[in-house]
Amino acid sequence: MTTPETRFGRIRPAPENFLSQDDIRAVAAGRRGFLRKAFAAAGAAVAAPAAFAASPKGDPAILELPEWSTTLGQPVAANPYGMPSQFERGLVRRQSPGLTRVPGSSVSFTPLQGLFGMITPSGLHFERHHQGWHDVDPNRHRLMINGLVKTEAVYTMDDLMRLPSVSRIHFIECGANTGMEWGNVAVPTVQYSHGMLSCSEFTGVPLKLILDMCGADYKKGRYILAEGADGSSMTRTIPMEMVESGEVLVAYGMNGEMLRPENGYPLRLVVPGVQGVSWVKWLRRIEVGDQPWGAKDEAVHYIDMMPDGVHRQYTSIQECKSVITSPSGGQLLLDKGFHNITGLAWSGRGKITRVDVSVDGGINWMPARLEGPVLPKALTRFNCDWVWDGKPYILQSRAVDETGYVQPSYGQLRKVRGTSSIYHNNAIQSWKVAESGEVGNVQVL
Amino acid sequence: MTTPETRFGRIRPAPENFLSQDDIRAVAAGRRGFLRKAFAAAGAAVAAPAAFAASPKGDPAILELPEWSTTLGQPVAANPYGMPSQFERGLVRRQSPGLTRVPGSSVSFTPLQGLFGMITPSGLHFERHHQGWHDVDPNRHRLMINGLVKTEAVYTMDDLMRLPSVSRIHFIECGANTGMEWGNVAVPTVQYSHGMLSCSEFTGVPLKLILDMCGADYKKGRYILAEGADGSSMTRTIPMEMVESGEVLVAYGMNGEMLRPENGYPLRLVVPGVQGVSWVKWLRRIEVGDQPWGAKDEAVHYIDMMPDGVHRQYTSIQECKSVITSPSGGQLLLDKGFHNITGLAWSGRGKITRVDVSVDGGINWMPARLEGPVLPKALTRFNCDWVWDGKPYILQSRAVDETGYVQPSYGQLRKVRGTSSIYHNNAIQSWKVAESGEVGNVQVL
Repeated sequence: MTTPETRFGRIRPAPENFLSQDDIRAVAAGRRGFLRKAFAAAGAAVAAPAAFAASPKGDPAILELPEWSTTLGQPVAANPYGMPSQFERGLVRRQSPGLTRVPGSSVSFTPLQGLFGMITPSGLHFERHHQGWHDVDPNRHRLMINGLVKTEAVYTMDDLMRLPSVSRIHFIECGANTGMEWGNVAVPTVQYSHGMLSCSEFTGVPLKLILDMCGADYKKGRYILAEGADGSSMTRTIPMEMVESGEVLVAYGMNGEMLRPENGYPLRLVVPGVQGVSWVKWLRRIEVGDQPWGAKDEAVHYIDMMPDGVHRQYTSIQECKSVITSPSGGQLLLDKGFHNITGLAWSGRGKITRVDVSVDGGINWMPARLEGPVLPKALTRFNCDWVWDGKPYILQSRAVDETGYVQPSYGQLRKVRGTSSIYHNNAIQSWKVAESGEVGNVQVL
Repeated sequence: MTTPETRFGRIRPAPENFLSQDDIRAVAAGRRGFLRKAFAAAGAAVAAPAAFAASPKGDPAILELPEWSTTLGQPVAANPYGMPSQFERGLVRRQSPGLTRVPGSSVSFTPLQGLFGMITPSGLHFERHHQGWHDVDPNRHRLMINGLVKTEAVYTMDDLMRLPSVSRIHFIECGANTGMEWGNVAVPTVQYSHGMLSCSEFTGVPLKLILDMCGADYKKGRYILAEGADGSSMTRTIPMEMVESGEVLVAYGMNGEMLRPENGYPLRLVVPGVQGVSWVKWLRRIEVGDQPWGAKDEAVHYIDMMPDGVHRQYTSIQECKSVITSPSGGQLLLDKGFHNITGLAWSGRGKITRVDVSVDGGINWMPARLEGPVLPKALTRFNCDWVWDGKPYILQSRAVDETGYVQPSYGQLRKVRGTSSIYHNNAIQSWKVAESGEVGNVQVL
């Protein structure tokens, strides 16, 4: 970590970060009265970016005491369940307009450009629904175990939450994350290019323990089928080895509290390293079987179109990948000087061992600092020092995992996969910094 | 991890977990229309605990498809910033009635009895305010560095967020946590006995880096003063060794997003292992000096009354401590059988190396499973198997940290500290399980 010069570069967040009047109205409609004052202030903040130019000498902000230093503030538990500052109201999950025809079967993206560390706030966890989400009544929800087991069983939430419990931090990424980029559609911001990605601490019961209790036939029963309780009857086949490893969890907890309704409350499957579609939400049934089911969501969807026109099936593991989240597309470097380049790296095969950053489109690479703890099948935050001299640059990150796998360039990936796929794009992402300071999405082969 | 018998014990949450009609009204007043249906369902759930008794045979919940399996649900981004299920509305931060005279200078407690893992949801982070909280405008907020430095400086948030950034997971505990128990006031639930405790991933700039940039005189300047921007002019002395270790952060991020207003948005000090009062919120000034300041919050408050009537000052580090969060006070074991005993352990001196659990008031101890990652100065979740035979028991946990320090009993602690203190109570907590299944708070010396 170098000590930067005392004049810093400045950056303007991507449009998603700004607090728009629409956001204010939307929030105001759903918020308590005591927050109204904050909205006015928020409006003012947006209207007056001049404050950013303030300097120590004659800085209005330090010539007079602000109201928060001279008045009694809000009481404790004014928000029994707290929310972000009104000044952060622009940083939300967003749907990609026109991506799907039905918003009940669509995606909302996590605003990676404004986040820190490895944990994704549960309120900003990306969404992928096939028939919308419900706030399922945990008292009426059940989990059935059937198929190649000695004793079929039906569990209440109450039964499950009495069982031995484990807690583990893992990333979840939709198999279609960064899918638009296959066709060289350069989506404007990292929220839309990589935002089907989140990382949480999950708490639940190892599925192996439940199958043991039901006397599963591990000799014949080499696969399980996981089924969700929503109207899409989402079903996915998962090889029994993954269950036997003890990694697959029947989870009820996420980031310390119960799962959110949009993320499968009260019960979802956690399949570390595997694409999100297999992390079946509102989990209601596990069947043990002797062969893959070839369900619609594994025969028609979530398959890789290869250059020869054949679809590749059951490619579930998310390979090693990384992305710079700031500076990133849509942001603007407001002046030269020091900038902290930060981003995320992850691998469905285990731990990240190194991340390198290039500012010249991949000619030279410098090692980034990895923030601990570096955990298997979890997001790893990286940071890298950079002093911008005002010239154009191309920023890239390249991750390596503990298997030795190196994140490929678009050139390398397309040699094998072509350009017609939707899923499993883990290529190196490039952000172009123009002399104007504007940051845009470009593809470098 | 043992495989429990298939008939499980069942537990009723502490009163704080229930969804009361007041909660429903309070929430309804501040929520969007589309949630109304959920409130009705939530009301029903509370009114009908009968559902808990449902068995596979003739289980109404599996004889007919629920509405969430037969209808289109909510669209993505229905909540641009997501919230917990309406069925979890009872699990909130709560003020202790009558604990203080002014709710602007009071405490709200984290509902530990309903939480999982090591990460505390930011919406449930405990609060301790000295003059209430404000939603501070980040565009007007400044951090001043002065005192024994070559160059005094004033930083905008914009300046600070360009600096090299680190992310680390740490617990924060108020020095007065479990303070009521000194006087043998057995508060009813773990939310009130231990709820001034949270753990988050913090992101920010090492204070050492900022002091280096200002040319701090580390030879003379062996102390810093941290000052908050709220009306209480909260000021705390921190020894320079802690800053030099690189552990002290000027933090803007918590659990992946910006700090919450109640937790110091947009800037707070993070002082790992040290009591919460030193983690100055709404941080506006750091002064470097050659001796402790003896400010009011370190001369009059946050001092330990010893048996000889003398106050012990500057005892800032939170010693090794643990508590069973479930089963815990106010909860009810609804029948015999398997129960997962779970809780939290932490130490301001480093990592937790082991936690032992006793069900017979400390005569016999069994090692608990520690959930990874076990991090220094962070919460560590532990779990322990237990089959309840319906007889009375006393549940306890005892933590050991990497210095070899063993969490003391009340007898051991009082020999040294007496009973007149308010702060730094890290004694072993005892929960009594009656034959009725009721769990209560008792003190065992």
